[in-house]
Amino acid sequence: MSHESLLVGIDAGGTSTRAVLVDSAGRCLGYGVGGRGNPVSAGPERAAQGVLDAVCRALEPAGRQLAEVSAVTAAMAGMRATGGVAWLHGPLAAAGFTGRLAFESDLLAAYFSGSAAPFGYALVSGTGACVVRVQDGRIDGTGDGLGWLLGDRGSGFWIGHAVAMAAVQDLDSTGPATALTDHVLGHYGIPRTTVIDEGRPQELGRLVEVLYAHAPIELAALAPYAFAEPDAVAAAILEQAGTHLADTLSAVLTAPGPLVVGGSVLARSGPVQDAFRARLGEAAKRLDIRPVGDGAVGAAFLALRGAGARADEQTLRTLTETLAELR
Amino acid sequence: MSHESLLVGIDAGGTSTRAVLVDSAGRCLGYGVGGRGNPVSAGPERAAQGVLDAVCRALEPAGRQLAEVSAVTAAMAGMRATGGVAWLHGPLAAAGFTGRLAFESDLLAAYFSGSAAPFGYALVSGTGACVVRVQDGRIDGTGDGLGWLLGDRGSGFWIGHAVAMAAVQDLDSTGPATALTDHVLGHYGIPRTTVIDEGRPQELGRLVEVLYAHAPIELAALAPYAFAEPDAVAAAILEQAGTHLADTLSAVLTAPGPLVVGGSVLARSGPVQDAFRARLGEAAKRLDIRPVGDGAVGAAFLALRGAGARADEQTLRTLTETLAELR
Repeated sequence: MSHESLLVGIDAGGTSTRAVLVDSAGRCLGYGVGGRGNPVSAGPERAAQGVLDAVCRALEPAGRQLAEVSAVTAAMAGMRATGGVAWLHGPLAAAGFTGRLAFESDLLAAYFSGSAAPFGYALVSGTGACVVRVQDGRIDGTGDGLGWLLGDRGSGFWIGHAVAMAAVQDLDSTGPATALTDHVLGHYGIPRTTVIDEGRPQELGRLVEVLYAHAPIELAALAPYAFAEPDAVAAAILEQAGTHLADTLSAVLTAPGPLVVGGSVLARSGPVQDAFRARLGEAAKRLDIRPVGDGAVGAAFLALRGAGARADEQTLRTLTETLAELR
Repeated sequence: MSHESLLVGIDAGGTSTRAVLVDSAGRCLGYGVGGRGNPVSAGPERAAQGVLDAVCRALEPAGRQLAEVSAVTAAMAGMRATGGVAWLHGPLAAAGFTGRLAFESDLLAAYFSGSAAPFGYALVSGTGACVVRVQDGRIDGTGDGLGWLLGDRGSGFWIGHAVAMAAVQDLDSTGPATALTDHVLGHYGIPRTTVIDEGRPQELGRLVEVLYAHAPIELAALAPYAFAEPDAVAAAILEQAGTHLADTLSAVLTAPGPLVVGGSVLARSGPVQDAFRARLGEAAKRLDIRPVGDGAVGAAFLALRGAGARADEQTLRTLTETLAELR
């Protein structure tokens, strides 16, 4: 590739999308954020718009055109389910793009946001939860990421679901009393009553009705109450989440290596982190834990690697430093 | 009421509906089965048809008309959510019914299918799971029955969900190997492969896709594999189900009394029953456990009670014996 080549790395997520414009030396020239970028959850048209918005916002301040970009690498979850690249290639081409479009895993972008080593691990716990083992720069082991109904144990959804269940079990008297109940009732604007209905407070019926009226995944919105509330029930939920995340990591853990950690659940110190480290025991000490905010740097790293440019520890440093200046 | 009065008790469920025609002495004169009878899950039109079919099939062999029936008592779940009686009263009136229509809880019908005592308990674990405490012939305590997303712990759904998760965790290597996996893959017609995809067998991806393509509640269809398969993972699921059901009962347990048990989960001897009794400990010995097949007898009992007719232990015996002759 020529030194004038421009590349775009995209970190497309379920709620927002980040685009990074880089030159072949790994210097970030532009950064933009768009809306929902995952075609599986947002639908292909809306996702393509989210990606295009992010790309345009990365190009504009740098005074660059999409026609100058030689390759776009889009990192996102579940790319096998979308049936090809047309949903994104079409809109990009219509906007002037004539280069190469490639897809990569969002987990790999998370990994390369915190490490350039060919061997290591990435653990992301946001709304969902997934762990990958990277070998020779490719994913060769995966744990969980099975979605809200079947897995994602220790994720934001998992915590929010546990918070909701703690509240209904408190009101139902099948679980312990917890301050989480007032948080959850307050979240949905349901007042406490003294009305008893077949032995249970009337607000239980209202809460159950409201919870079933929403999509299950929206329970993730209740997760912050577990972090905000210091009572024993909330602490037990967070400890269990940390234990689950450690167990998911353990399932793919072979040799020591860097562990890149993304998503908000493991980001802050407290019960989740403590339980996570306690469950891993000695293994935790042999892991070089590196928190990352998102997969933007890694998406740019993957774009460089895909174009045959240098992609190593030095590149990662350059990307990280020059992107920080733009954000 | 005159001794010529005819009453109909209806036990309306999510999958089928039973109607019992009785005289005021508690003798069953007719019995009929119809389709789905719950307006919340089946929709009001379909549910009304299910109830009407059952009623007509109970009347016809007895040579009776709906116009001769002085009262219909329909026992079903979640009647508060349906917004009134019009969905059923309209179709019944159109078919010639001029009497009184009343609704009762399906849990109360289950209770009076096995006991006429004014104090006692009913535990039903079918697709869902719920416990009630009966005092003075009315429900004055309720445990669980919170639905698949928030509760129903120890139900057929809960067991089926656990079976599905055991299978995906086995394939994901985040859980122990289990023979349940072959049952679940076989259930959905997914063959085993030797193809590895990012460290996991390809059939995991196919299974996850299939499971998300169905309504969550359909996971209840996997519950029978836990009963059929004697391995440790299956046994642990059933034991946990029994423990959950005991805990739900414990939440409403005050004094000793009859415990009427409905639904298929606790019906057969084995790990669920064993764990249920073990968890209850001494309390289990003070309960008079009575299994019932459904709530048909209790619905007739409630119809008699609602009409001011005799409704006691003798009535229950008469209802049970005369209905058995008709089924």
